[in-house]
Amino acid sequence: MKDKFYNYIVALQDSITSQLESLDGKAIFREDIWERPEGGGGKTRVIENGDVFEKGGVNISAVHGALPKSMQSYFGVQEADFFACGLSLVLHPINPFVPTVHANWRYFEMYDKEGNIVDQWFGGGQDLTPYYLFDEDALHFHTICKQACDKHHPDFYTTYKTKCDEYFYNSHRQEARGIGGLFFDYCKASEEMSMEQWYNFVTEVGDSFLNSYVPIVERRKDLSYSKDQRTWQEIRRGRYVEFNLVHDKGTLFGLKTNGRIESILMSLPPTVQWVYDHHPEKGSEEARLLCVLNEPKDWIAS
Amino acid sequence: MKDKFYNYIVALQDSITSQLESLDGKAIFREDIWERPEGGGGKTRVIENGDVFEKGGVNISAVHGALPKSMQSYFGVQEADFFACGLSLVLHPINPFVPTVHANWRYFEMYDKEGNIVDQWFGGGQDLTPYYLFDEDALHFHTICKQACDKHHPDFYTTYKTKCDEYFYNSHRQEARGIGGLFFDYCKASEEMSMEQWYNFVTEVGDSFLNSYVPIVERRKDLSYSKDQRTWQEIRRGRYVEFNLVHDKGTLFGLKTNGRIESILMSLPPTVQWVYDHHPEKGSEEARLLCVLNEPKDWIAS
Repeated sequence: MKDKFYNYIVALQDSITSQLESLDGKAIFREDIWERPEGGGGKTRVIENGDVFEKGGVNISAVHGALPKSMQSYFGVQEADFFACGLSLVLHPINPFVPTVHANWRYFEMYDKEGNIVDQWFGGGQDLTPYYLFDEDALHFHTICKQACDKHHPDFYTTYKTKCDEYFYNSHRQEARGIGGLFFDYCKASEEMSMEQWYNFVTEVGDSFLNSYVPIVERRKDLSYSKDQRTWQEIRRGRYVEFNLVHDKGTLFGLKTNGRIESILMSLPPTVQWVYDHHPEKGSEEARLLCVLNEPKDWIAS
Repeated sequence: MKDKFYNYIVALQDSITSQLESLDGKAIFREDIWERPEGGGGKTRVIENGDVFEKGGVNISAVHGALPKSMQSYFGVQEADFFACGLSLVLHPINPFVPTVHANWRYFEMYDKEGNIVDQWFGGGQDLTPYYLFDEDALHFHTICKQACDKHHPDFYTTYKTKCDEYFYNSHRQEARGIGGLFFDYCKASEEMSMEQWYNFVTEVGDSFLNSYVPIVERRKDLSYSKDQRTWQEIRRGRYVEFNLVHDKGTLFGLKTNGRIESILMSLPPTVQWVYDHHPEKGSEEARLLCVLNEPKDWIAS
């Protein structure tokens, strides 16, 4: 399973970066290959200063070795060996009408002293962070997420949509980071779902990513925008930074376990503003976004 | 003691904000008075878009009530009542040759069920974060810090300078946030120092603040700078954000105990950049700063 999923993310990284390069039309991804001293490594691909994407990364990594102390206490286990691999991406477009997107699909194995697998699971998801809200974009993104889920289980979309709203939440601001999507973790073999079936589900979601996002980018990337709209985008990007540095388990985990800092923090937006006590005008499009972020919405009426 | 120190910070806030307004020459501080539902409140004063200060805050607060659960475990105590007051300031100048400064002086009391003081202490410090390093500025700042310390104890400067270097450290970057200053905490009555003597020490440091910083601002505020130097400042401000959101106990504490978010996050810089894997040119002034941040320096040869 580990080789199968690793091969999947290697191919997925290639197809995602090549299609994003075509979409951007100007910038190409720069690749950094890195090694982890304790075992494994990764391929970081970063795009900057494109015509569409101001900054973004589509990274894969596969690491293994002794489970770090901090992970032992996090998972509530003793000393063990582990393997983890995944693809992680964040895209920050220039145009404030194009939403930021984040996605991650990962696989984890733990071993006993003899090297037998004692635990294994998938995790991941994808979520959208608009600066201006086009209902049709939100509906499109969630529809693609739901279609991928529905092929595997009738409850998955609702369950993982709710988990996503709960996870990507800036509790100190009492608002969601964005309009959500899917979030799943610890997807383990059960009577209902074998690991093979989980693999089929996770790769279905991964395969749906470009369909969920690219049409939105195409619709919005050439809309003209004002300096004020750009300022609003940069202020909202500040909330993105706050979430990633204060709440995001993956980021904090990487920072505290000696991960490759630049690969982890490629998720941070290129230009950001913090304005003291900023509030959008009542009745404005900016205020409408905040209303939706204050209370997660069911985009697909059931 | 609590009234005495509170009156001190009220007067200090006035003198600091009025002198910073004169120094800026354009912007004035906007005042927001807020109340904490559980008891107490504060006076937040923020300056934005000045001729010298792009953003800054000089805030006081005095809060009291039942010690929040998170603070109980932090201090390792059971249920108790507390009182805490302090002044907190951060100034982000426009000109990349003018350093950012942070300072905080605070007093804490804990009570038993009968309302008797069972514990009380002072804490605080001040530290400088330059974007370009002028040795004479660093020497000036540390000299004023040392002079204030030396009046109260021959060991204070060395002890609190070292603590400052240890505290304001971005461990995930393996570099200091800035060039340090003073950091002290849990300053409690002992055979050597009564609370009265600690009060005299802390207020001496507070009183020295303007002398430690204003002459540096005056020397550097009118130097001309390039767009690249401004970009460097914004990239370095990103490290400031990383420290405050990932490592700073005060910030995280405030965010997790329902503090007034805008007063806490006024510390974040106004405009910030994150550039993937940025490294300054070898031998440049930017590279020289990083060398010093990689290994804290003794600014005052003893």
